[in-house]
Amino acid sequence: MKISCKKLDLMQGVNIVMKGVSGRTTISILECIIVSAQYNEIKLTSNNMQMAVETIIPGTVEEDGSIALDAKMLSEIVRKLPDESVRLETESNYNTNIISGSFKGDMVGRSAEEFPAIPKIEKNDYMEISRFVLRDLIHQTIFSVGDNENNIIMTGEKFELKDNILTVVSLDGHRISIRKEALKNQYKDQKVVIPAKTLGEIAKIIGGDEENSDIKIYFSDKQIMFIMDQTTIVSRLIEGEYLDTDRMISKDYETKVKINKKNLLDCIDRASIYSKEGDKKPLVMNIFDGKVVITTTSQYGKMEEDLQIEKEGKDLLIGFNPKFLSDALKVIEEEEVTLYMTNQKSPCLIKDDQGKYIYLILPINFSNIAR
Amino acid sequence: MKISCKKLDLMQGVNIVMKGVSGRTTISILECIIVSAQYNEIKLTSNNMQMAVETIIPGTVEEDGSIALDAKMLSEIVRKLPDESVRLETESNYNTNIISGSFKGDMVGRSAEEFPAIPKIEKNDYMEISRFVLRDLIHQTIFSVGDNENNIIMTGEKFELKDNILTVVSLDGHRISIRKEALKNQYKDQKVVIPAKTLGEIAKIIGGDEENSDIKIYFSDKQIMFIMDQTTIVSRLIEGEYLDTDRMISKDYETKVKINKKNLLDCIDRASIYSKEGDKKPLVMNIFDGKVVITTTSQYGKMEEDLQIEKEGKDLLIGFNPKFLSDALKVIEEEEVTLYMTNQKSPCLIKDDQGKYIYLILPINFSNIAR
Repeated sequence: MKISCKKLDLMQGVNIVMKGVSGRTTISILECIIVSAQYNEIKLTSNNMQMAVETIIPGTVEEDGSIALDAKMLSEIVRKLPDESVRLETESNYNTNIISGSFKGDMVGRSAEEFPAIPKIEKNDYMEISRFVLRDLIHQTIFSVGDNENNIIMTGEKFELKDNILTVVSLDGHRISIRKEALKNQYKDQKVVIPAKTLGEIAKIIGGDEENSDIKIYFSDKQIMFIMDQTTIVSRLIEGEYLDTDRMISKDYETKVKINKKNLLDCIDRASIYSKEGDKKPLVMNIFDGKVVITTTSQYGKMEEDLQIEKEGKDLLIGFNPKFLSDALKVIEEEEVTLYMTNQKSPCLIKDDQGKYIYLILPINFSNIAR
Repeated sequence: MKISCKKLDLMQGVNIVMKGVSGRTTISILECIIVSAQYNEIKLTSNNMQMAVETIIPGTVEEDGSIALDAKMLSEIVRKLPDESVRLETESNYNTNIISGSFKGDMVGRSAEEFPAIPKIEKNDYMEISRFVLRDLIHQTIFSVGDNENNIIMTGEKFELKDNILTVVSLDGHRISIRKEALKNQYKDQKVVIPAKTLGEIAKIIGGDEENSDIKIYFSDKQIMFIMDQTTIVSRLIEGEYLDTDRMISKDYETKVKINKKNLLDCIDRASIYSKEGDKKPLVMNIFDGKVVITTTSQYGKMEEDLQIEKEGKDLLIGFNPKFLSDALKVIEEEEVTLYMTNQKSPCLIKDDQGKYIYLILPINFSNIAR
């Protein structure tokens, strides 16, 4: 294989496929990126057996071929190359020369033959969505995914397409996050559970991209494929029935509180100083007309703070895990948020009037706390 | 004690004295900051038994007194306070209230009586130096301090004042850093060894300060005191005779090389990709007229790069620990650096014509390396 391309294109391509490289694996070929050149096209590929990433970069192919190169080392070398252009040349023993300006480095390469093939997916059922919207949907739900591998279904997020509305759901047993987004076109109904790790990597690949464009998502029984511009991502799906969250979301409430999001977040931030990692001290909210008194007590001391609110319904004394509240508040874009509560033991809902988001949080017991 | 002050002043003061708080200690009072109010002056103090830091902040004293407060928690609370002003009020049981805007927090305080007194130093022998110059002197030498506690003298830096020139020296057995600075005034000759840890914290306290001013340094037998504006730092000195570096610095050389610093640093950076943490692969320099060929070989592959140089004297093949070279190059301000070498086994000197800096680096053996 002999190719030449711009350093920047190679670097961007490597950064994208790095997301599909195994961090820790006993199969050492999975720590590699495949560079392949055929039909005048340069393709980079990675595969960690859960997710495969493939991207095509611009450049010139002088000789077809393919090579497996250690991903971490390739990434480091490419990032530090002295010149704007770079040449890659493999020798018959898989040794690969990287030449850029006055620099000539080589890497111990391996045959690309050993590398697992990327699953093929029929391009039948699909949907299209703006990449920025997809990134936001992931960002606004991924924090409440379960991390217990014994309950594998909770380690994924449900993507449900129904009547051209995409609903993304995550839950971890203490809270639920739901985001809905109306799509521009008509698609067939779908319901899949996508591993959160895949979604996290996709959000990173979209990252802070400056230009928006649409992503095509293809569905199959066991796999899902995302195609954006020159990049293709194929991920396994999680099998099994996702929990029915609809019947957990009650429309009734006894207390409705409207509060400034930043003030509440700042207050939780201060309260969290009193609750060190590990000991989960509740944030106690004492809700009256016009104000909420927020308190926390721990071995380190106690704090108390008043915040202005608009309240409808009953007064209420309720306790929360401060992290669960702040996780949800941080991803809400609105300046004002509305909390719907029933009593000390029933879930609190944070939701908007348009039905774009619902965050359900279970309160926690604080009866053993001095008040 | 009852005091009030600006949040920003308290935060800056706490940040300064935090540098003198013990990280890990069995004496828990050393994890505290003392806040004391007397004669209408608010003073913050810390002491880790090696170094004590004291700073005075502006504010109003309503009631004299003092209290020991957990440094980490105080720092976190102050940083996150909602209002621009803050009140501290201690109760008779050492409980301390912190009030700012609608926030009211308290902390479990302790009697300040237990806290070790700061050593007193006679204000006799002293010198003055610009704080920016002191910060640079520390920054440009501290990287080559020894980290072996069995050789305690090498864990400090020699500050030698002679004929109104301050010479700062550090060494770790493989390299020596020397920086000289002419002082503006006449002072008595001095020679002390200051713990590198103290110097590092002083450099951090000076940090990115926007305004320069002079620091007064007072010398005594066992302690040294730094006074800058409202802050006083007292540190123990390291006892013992510092190594005589003068006789290690030879004026003779066989090969003199002038090279662009950034190009050499970038090349070392690329070479270091081939030498992972732990395995010290040498950077081999093959020096000819007009160019140096730099190579590195390891199990991961090899690299080769040519750099332009101006050479006087003999050709030379010599090997270095790449980190030792780059540590020195990174702190040199000039764009071009000059290396003076004799042979494969003798030290290399990097020095300027004005005699402001000398970096001595021992070469390493590379006879077992394929060339």
